[in-house]
Amino acid sequence: MNYLSLDDAARKAELDALYAEYNKIKDEGISLDLSRGKPGADQLDITMGMLGVISHSNDCFTETGFDCRNYGNLDGLPEAKRLFSELLGIAPERIFIGGNSSLNMMYDTIARAMIYGMGEGNTPWSQQGAIKFICLTPGYDRHFAICETFGIDMIPVELREDGPDMDVIRELVQNDPQIKGIWCVPKYSNPSGTVFSDEVVRQFAALKPKAPDFRIFWDNAYAVHDLYDEKVELANIFDLADEYGTTDHILYFASTSKISFPGSGVALLATSEKNMEQIKKIVSVQTIGHDKINQLRHVKYFQNAKGVRRHMRHHAEIIRPKFEAVLTALREDLADTGVARWTEPKGGYFISLDVTTGSAKRVWNLAKEVGVTLTNAGASFPYGHDPYDRNLRIAPTYPSLKDVKAAAKVLTLCVRIAALEDLEANK
Amino acid sequence: MNYLSLDDAARKAELDALYAEYNKIKDEGISLDLSRGKPGADQLDITMGMLGVISHSNDCFTETGFDCRNYGNLDGLPEAKRLFSELLGIAPERIFIGGNSSLNMMYDTIARAMIYGMGEGNTPWSQQGAIKFICLTPGYDRHFAICETFGIDMIPVELREDGPDMDVIRELVQNDPQIKGIWCVPKYSNPSGTVFSDEVVRQFAALKPKAPDFRIFWDNAYAVHDLYDEKVELANIFDLADEYGTTDHILYFASTSKISFPGSGVALLATSEKNMEQIKKIVSVQTIGHDKINQLRHVKYFQNAKGVRRHMRHHAEIIRPKFEAVLTALREDLADTGVARWTEPKGGYFISLDVTTGSAKRVWNLAKEVGVTLTNAGASFPYGHDPYDRNLRIAPTYPSLKDVKAAAKVLTLCVRIAALEDLEANK
Repeated sequence: MNYLSLDDAARKAELDALYAEYNKIKDEGISLDLSRGKPGADQLDITMGMLGVISHSNDCFTETGFDCRNYGNLDGLPEAKRLFSELLGIAPERIFIGGNSSLNMMYDTIARAMIYGMGEGNTPWSQQGAIKFICLTPGYDRHFAICETFGIDMIPVELREDGPDMDVIRELVQNDPQIKGIWCVPKYSNPSGTVFSDEVVRQFAALKPKAPDFRIFWDNAYAVHDLYDEKVELANIFDLADEYGTTDHILYFASTSKISFPGSGVALLATSEKNMEQIKKIVSVQTIGHDKINQLRHVKYFQNAKGVRRHMRHHAEIIRPKFEAVLTALREDLADTGVARWTEPKGGYFISLDVTTGSAKRVWNLAKEVGVTLTNAGASFPYGHDPYDRNLRIAPTYPSLKDVKAAAKVLTLCVRIAALEDLEANK
Repeated sequence: MNYLSLDDAARKAELDALYAEYNKIKDEGISLDLSRGKPGADQLDITMGMLGVISHSNDCFTETGFDCRNYGNLDGLPEAKRLFSELLGIAPERIFIGGNSSLNMMYDTIARAMIYGMGEGNTPWSQQGAIKFICLTPGYDRHFAICETFGIDMIPVELREDGPDMDVIRELVQNDPQIKGIWCVPKYSNPSGTVFSDEVVRQFAALKPKAPDFRIFWDNAYAVHDLYDEKVELANIFDLADEYGTTDHILYFASTSKISFPGSGVALLATSEKNMEQIKKIVSVQTIGHDKINQLRHVKYFQNAKGVRRHMRHHAEIIRPKFEAVLTALREDLADTGVARWTEPKGGYFISLDVTTGSAKRVWNLAKEVGVTLTNAGASFPYGHDPYDRNLRIAPTYPSLKDVKAAAKVLTLCVRIAALEDLEANK
């Protein structure tokens, strides 16, 4: 039933029917949650073997005889760098292994730029007046929160099917010296699942920014997080940047938060040798080193890139049905209505759902009232402000499959109600 | 033999005898290291049991059912706070459990002050012109390195037997609004082993700083690191600060780096509820949370404060003989000479050795040439500059007892040679 072509009477009848359904669910007193991009407990269970791989003193030494239990080794174990090098296609000398959080490494990177300058010899960002970041939307709320806390102005640019419009990006970056960075989740972008095309990645590498201290924050959070056996390949930004001589522009982040354990994984920052020199100099004052026993756990457990990919197939087996349950509900209940569109990601942790303009908050409230928690409407936009109030981020991984199915049905019901209410109000 | 009262001939003869001994050692080609404040491998071995306490999914839950493997819990597990609360006598709500490094928490605390201001509503330190920290000397080189990297001017104040001269501290802090902080290692200070007296701690709590954003950086790194069964008690700075209404001045740091594993321990920051509110607001943007599996490991392994204290007695049994080996060598070889004085700590990780003025670098070089590495002369002073060039930091924990004994004998030999050379040159 296409909602847009209903006459008044038919719309009224449909809305009444949906309200009846809604009230019935309300009476059931459910409590479901599609808001959190967290692995489910069943996913966490598959990595438990990692916690046992280091239990005796003899297990604690690296291949060169370094005792991981003691101080030292600022930038990460060589074997940990090698593992990620193989997995991500980045030269080991460009990799810094950090603590448990890539978000923390991003925040710290910006804090360093504020205080010391981004790149040796450049003026600290805090002394350059109002600076700006380009924020692809919809995007990752925590990226935007970092900008907000540092007082960095955000310029939203729409993320399209294969990445942003690079003409727009180029125009901005090449002309405005106050633009110091752009946030990218280039593969299975949060929340749309977008994968940047080879051409988009090439054009990122080819950027000639006006600001000498401009950086591309390449948050490859879902580098190996495929839902299907058929892998989606992302072009290697370092290879292309090397070709264009722009490697200093690249700040690449990744972590095992959704490979091993969120909160007890291993994060990394990769960048040019020149940038790395400045980073190491500062970080060597900040800390004596990160948790190397945990790095070694990851190396011993996964062994190599193949081991990680094998492990990721287990994750996919668990979460793929959850994604498909949501997509099935969206297709069955909304495809004909003409009042919603959504992405069908091949990986990552989210589905992006666009409802009718001005209805996202209403959908969120309708769902909330009936016991289904969604990510706040607007969360995927700078300052939490969706200019069209239409986007919702759906996170299907954390609840059980049964709960995902139930929550998705409630979601589609709320979308239909909000759309009809909107049509009714604007008739 | 008192070197100061030798006549020229006797001095010459003694120096020749020592040179002969020195050259003999040089020929032996030894390689020993007293420079690093690191636990020895035998110490690390005693905590191995901790790595096995979480190995099954069921082990990963807190007492309230929170899954430590997943995202969340910014400021630390309640049971981890309780453990440290009991151990250190600090209210749990004043404790923030961080990652593996208290140094990192200190650095981040200053970075936050630079960017956002120390205390809600205060002007960022980076916008207040040249700011200053008081640095007790000899002190911890990494504290001073943090000041240096942030461009904070350092005012050295001598650390005496029971802490600094509080009249000097009060005078400085009460009159100069540019003084924003003071570094303290109040118990078993690095490197002297000094413990602040109750009266000194009280006077710290009673300080009425000119700057509203002045803070006492109370790095209680060796809170439970006693070498002997007879414990040395440090007055509770929070109890006293509460009494004086100055709790907002206190930033208290500690970690298990030298309790469990350096690099894989748990660090904490404790401060007033008001300060904590600002800290949490900012850190919630920096990270989703620290490694909670590792926090739970510590809780499950140590159980309670008594468990930690029992564990620390094992550490003491291992390192006490090493401290005593150094002290024995110092007494036997230097007590009569009149050219050296040293501290005899009851805990911590270091011994502070003062040689004749202008001789520390020479001792360092003499030791180096013969294969014994000491911490750089001057390292315990701001900018690595010991105004008297007389202080050496001795770190006896890392080498084997046999090596400590051998290195200590070389050390005392070098001290005597340098002293006699100095007397010869200034005769």
